[in-house]
Amino acid sequence: MAFNENEPIGENARITTEPIPGSRKVYVEGVMHPDIRVPFRRIELSEAAKASKTEPLSHLSVYDPSGPYTDPDVEINVREGLADVRGTWITAREDTEVYEGRTRRPEDDGYRTEDRAEQIDRFPGLRRPIRRAKDGANVSQLHYARKGIITAEMEYVAIRENLLREELRANINEKVRSRRVAGNPMGASVPDVVTAEFVRDEIAKGRAIIPANINHPEVEPMIIGRNFLVKINANIGNSAVTSSIEEEVEKLVWGIRWGADTVMDLSTGRNIHATREWIIRNSPVPIGTVPIYQALEKVGGVVEDLSWEVYRDTLIEQAEQGVDYFTIHAGVLLRHIPMTATRVTGIVSRGGSIMAKWCLSHHKENFLYTHFAEICEIMKKYDVSFSLGDGMRPGCTADANDEAQFGELEALGELTKIAWEHDIQVMIEGPGHVPMHMIHENMTRQLETCGEAPFYTLGPLITDIAPGYDHITSGVGAAMIGWYGCAMLCYVTPKEHLGLPNRDDVKRGVITYRIAAHAADLAKGHPAARRRDDALSRARFEFRWQDQFSLSLDPDTAREYHDETLPAQAAKTAHFCSMCGPKFCSMKISADVRRYAEEQGMAAEAVMKAGMDAKSEEFRTTGGQLYSEQES
Amino acid sequence: MAFNENEPIGENARITTEPIPGSRKVYVEGVMHPDIRVPFRRIELSEAAKASKTEPLSHLSVYDPSGPYTDPDVEINVREGLADVRGTWITAREDTEVYEGRTRRPEDDGYRTEDRAEQIDRFPGLRRPIRRAKDGANVSQLHYARKGIITAEMEYVAIRENLLREELRANINEKVRSRRVAGNPMGASVPDVVTAEFVRDEIAKGRAIIPANINHPEVEPMIIGRNFLVKINANIGNSAVTSSIEEEVEKLVWGIRWGADTVMDLSTGRNIHATREWIIRNSPVPIGTVPIYQALEKVGGVVEDLSWEVYRDTLIEQAEQGVDYFTIHAGVLLRHIPMTATRVTGIVSRGGSIMAKWCLSHHKENFLYTHFAEICEIMKKYDVSFSLGDGMRPGCTADANDEAQFGELEALGELTKIAWEHDIQVMIEGPGHVPMHMIHENMTRQLETCGEAPFYTLGPLITDIAPGYDHITSGVGAAMIGWYGCAMLCYVTPKEHLGLPNRDDVKRGVITYRIAAHAADLAKGHPAARRRDDALSRARFEFRWQDQFSLSLDPDTAREYHDETLPAQAAKTAHFCSMCGPKFCSMKISADVRRYAEEQGMAAEAVMKAGMDAKSEEFRTTGGQLYSEQES
Repeated sequence: MAFNENEPIGENARITTEPIPGSRKVYVEGVMHPDIRVPFRRIELSEAAKASKTEPLSHLSVYDPSGPYTDPDVEINVREGLADVRGTWITAREDTEVYEGRTRRPEDDGYRTEDRAEQIDRFPGLRRPIRRAKDGANVSQLHYARKGIITAEMEYVAIRENLLREELRANINEKVRSRRVAGNPMGASVPDVVTAEFVRDEIAKGRAIIPANINHPEVEPMIIGRNFLVKINANIGNSAVTSSIEEEVEKLVWGIRWGADTVMDLSTGRNIHATREWIIRNSPVPIGTVPIYQALEKVGGVVEDLSWEVYRDTLIEQAEQGVDYFTIHAGVLLRHIPMTATRVTGIVSRGGSIMAKWCLSHHKENFLYTHFAEICEIMKKYDVSFSLGDGMRPGCTADANDEAQFGELEALGELTKIAWEHDIQVMIEGPGHVPMHMIHENMTRQLETCGEAPFYTLGPLITDIAPGYDHITSGVGAAMIGWYGCAMLCYVTPKEHLGLPNRDDVKRGVITYRIAAHAADLAKGHPAARRRDDALSRARFEFRWQDQFSLSLDPDTAREYHDETLPAQAAKTAHFCSMCGPKFCSMKISADVRRYAEEQGMAAEAVMKAGMDAKSEEFRTTGGQLYSEQES
Repeated sequence: MAFNENEPIGENARITTEPIPGSRKVYVEGVMHPDIRVPFRRIELSEAAKASKTEPLSHLSVYDPSGPYTDPDVEINVREGLADVRGTWITAREDTEVYEGRTRRPEDDGYRTEDRAEQIDRFPGLRRPIRRAKDGANVSQLHYARKGIITAEMEYVAIRENLLREELRANINEKVRSRRVAGNPMGASVPDVVTAEFVRDEIAKGRAIIPANINHPEVEPMIIGRNFLVKINANIGNSAVTSSIEEEVEKLVWGIRWGADTVMDLSTGRNIHATREWIIRNSPVPIGTVPIYQALEKVGGVVEDLSWEVYRDTLIEQAEQGVDYFTIHAGVLLRHIPMTATRVTGIVSRGGSIMAKWCLSHHKENFLYTHFAEICEIMKKYDVSFSLGDGMRPGCTADANDEAQFGELEALGELTKIAWEHDIQVMIEGPGHVPMHMIHENMTRQLETCGEAPFYTLGPLITDIAPGYDHITSGVGAAMIGWYGCAMLCYVTPKEHLGLPNRDDVKRGVITYRIAAHAADLAKGHPAARRRDDALSRARFEFRWQDQFSLSLDPDTAREYHDETLPAQAAKTAHFCSMCGPKFCSMKISADVRRYAEEQGMAAEAVMKAGMDAKSEEFRTTGGQLYSEQES
């Protein structure tokens, strides 16, 4: 993936650092762990909001994965990397040790000789000491959770997930008109308030994970699970031709700015190791990879030459760098491969097809499957989480929910149990291309088969006929499966199936998936999700344009679109919009209706307090003091 | 709505007329009515497809609402209007008469004096004679259907809905690999083959409508109903400043080019009558309006001055012009109005808020409700269909499914029965802003309350927080409610809530809604919907880029995106794409797997014929001749 831009690249020139318009960064401190500082993006409402009779809020704090880049008080230098967030928590646990680590080799970056590899633009910052669990120790959050320990990471995500609800409560007063709209959680159990103990318990049960490698102390912890806010992932990855390393970092920064909760580095080709170092050292969000890609580079791209030894070496290399979760296609088994022969699009997962080819050419079972216990031993030393890959995911709607896909899911269920026996955190990857009526079965089967381990799906795309619009075809499926219980949604950009996404594509993909994730939270009845919708709706009803922009997922685009038709600053305070004009403005007429009613003594406030039902019944039966009913 | 473009406008210069790339117009003749010529867009596959071992098709014909504009054999002149399609069918029924019609008045275009109105750029083409039903006659398709008559319009839509399935059957051979994927119709009864008698029966039952005013003979008949293909509507409308009348026509042409099945003219302000004349005379799709908008212009924008007389006059004026369906907010009743006082966004329907204000200021029941029987008398004379407006639709997710909304729906159910007593065709409008978990209730209540009359919804938007992306927030809801049984989806553009859509916005809105409608057809299990998905997926798997572009909803964008990364013509025949490159291409590896298997005697074709299940079982139990299984 590369940005198709030709602008010159300065040392830090391309890194986007200003806050999103209308908001500023705030931090909340921990209680159990006082050195915790959890970031939020505080959206400030306008003076008009404060003067409003119906607006209870002066500001609204929202979840913020954008990291220090949107904090003007932090000086960003991508050549130094981000500050350490978790270092003291990790060392305080006294179960890790610093060690030499693996020696970097030219083939880590796809070269055969040291002199070529020497020319790479390597991350110049100080390398923090490499850590691993002490002999016999397990440093996974799942391991701690099962021992009853509430880690700093757990308290951190508890604060983060609560979205400062108490702040809202303090702000709410009798002005709020909204009725309570219940959600349909589809079996999820989202609590009213997220406590650190709840987080611990969910992790202990395997229903949620905190992907946080001990060698990635820069990460701001986040949680992936069905009983938490729905998360989204954005993919990035180097491209052979156009990218500089600063560009790679900017892709990350740009993705998290608009709301990516995790980022997968899907780089292939040269300089994989070096690029990944730049990304991890500058990433406040968990980084995932598909280690088989790099392993394949190490054997010169010849699938047949892959081996457990090369793969194992790659896992350790990446774990030492700080990768937080690994996509591992260990569920692609020999018996599944012939099931794909009659598919319309065969195997479309890169990792899946690589492993299938390896299996066929060696007439052997998948070495990721046969060595799974050894993989677990590595994961627990660094707290790398499994993202068990769906190598058999359907590549078109005709192949959805077939025997190959669900056969692999069964295997992933077995592997989940093995990982849990090792106290390793696990999530399960899912499709893909699935027509709407077949989405729900994906979710229910995954929950049953994999013991409620978090599900992490790509879309799914609900039709195959719209290349160029697959952020939308997949966004629909993502919203639906998010509502049904999927914990994290992997984004798709408009360039999917066609080419490499540029900045605008990445943003469109991320925003589309933020819509999907938020709509899923809303449908599930997340207790804090509705605040933002209601605040924006109140701003809309009162023509507070500035607040509408600030509260929207993408204030820049909202303002730009408004400017296109009504560019004047005065229009930002106009009590109508360009769509209908003043005469036909239903919101304006509706406000007139309300005002008229008040003047006539209908006392809208009183109606509100007495409850809509009783009052409207009264109007209906008595004819009211205002209306004379004459039904025909 | 206006296009934000500054390019000069020639007489016909802006009208887009070329066929969509990769396709050409074909026509199918009627059997019962031999003068029927039903248009399809025939997508021609490439030579590579013909050479393919797995591609059964040489071409695929798809539904085509774009009219003669995409037929190079038709000379387009917007100043003359389109050719007559239905005239002979209408006159052959011998139940209509030509009459003088109402005299046009300056206020029809928003002027007080004739001299101002004289300056308008009026449609210069020959005015066809104005028709109405003979005294005592009813010319609605519902009336004919109930009498057991299969009209030419009914046969036309039957051919149209079948999507040339027989052509596909003739083309299919043993090469097809696709397994049968059943849909979930959610209670719909989509037949295997649509017969003209089925169409008649669905109309007779009130479950479908053919909106086709006898004064709109240019229309190419189409049907709206749950047991047919899901349809979409695009809104257009003049804007005070920027539009010329050619631009208005181009908006229509541009919308139907990308797939709008009907178009609503929501013009307000000056020149309403003249603009509408241009639009109808040039429209091959049904045109809908909201007559209260023009009525309000006639009384100078003063809601209180509206009256049944002005409204009645407007209905006749528009019926004589050929409007095919009227949105009428007759269900907004006095008793519903106080129910909106506690809403977050009150009344957001323009028509609804106008009627609410009228009711309040006069202390009277809605005159559209009290005069409903008289309205029916007008509709039946021209076969204008009702689109019963949802004046109480929620304007934010917090107001969804509330008492005001469902109270109005009850009233619409009553009105439906009255309309049916008059043999008038009816569809019901629906929301709006509805979180995902509350969408299904909208559909089930509508079906129950309105006796299965077709539902026609705006979105719904599943969250309020994404202005600038409301084609997406609403596209998700549209896809879902389309699957649940909604018959027509009213599009939303990215500019919704912010400003006036330009060409690109209109296209994005239409394509998003085509995705939603098609995905709904797919989920419902429409017998012909899957063909296109499978054809595109086969093209994708075989790297037939040209076929992928041609089969996609928007070939221009698909090709443009591919060009951005791999511009060379050679890349259009490359057996990989820019996303992964040749080494990591899963589709390529997957094809290798299939080929390898074939070489080894696995005989993929045999597997395919024997059926995937049996064969993979055989491989599993015997170890196969190819694989030696060694599970760990």
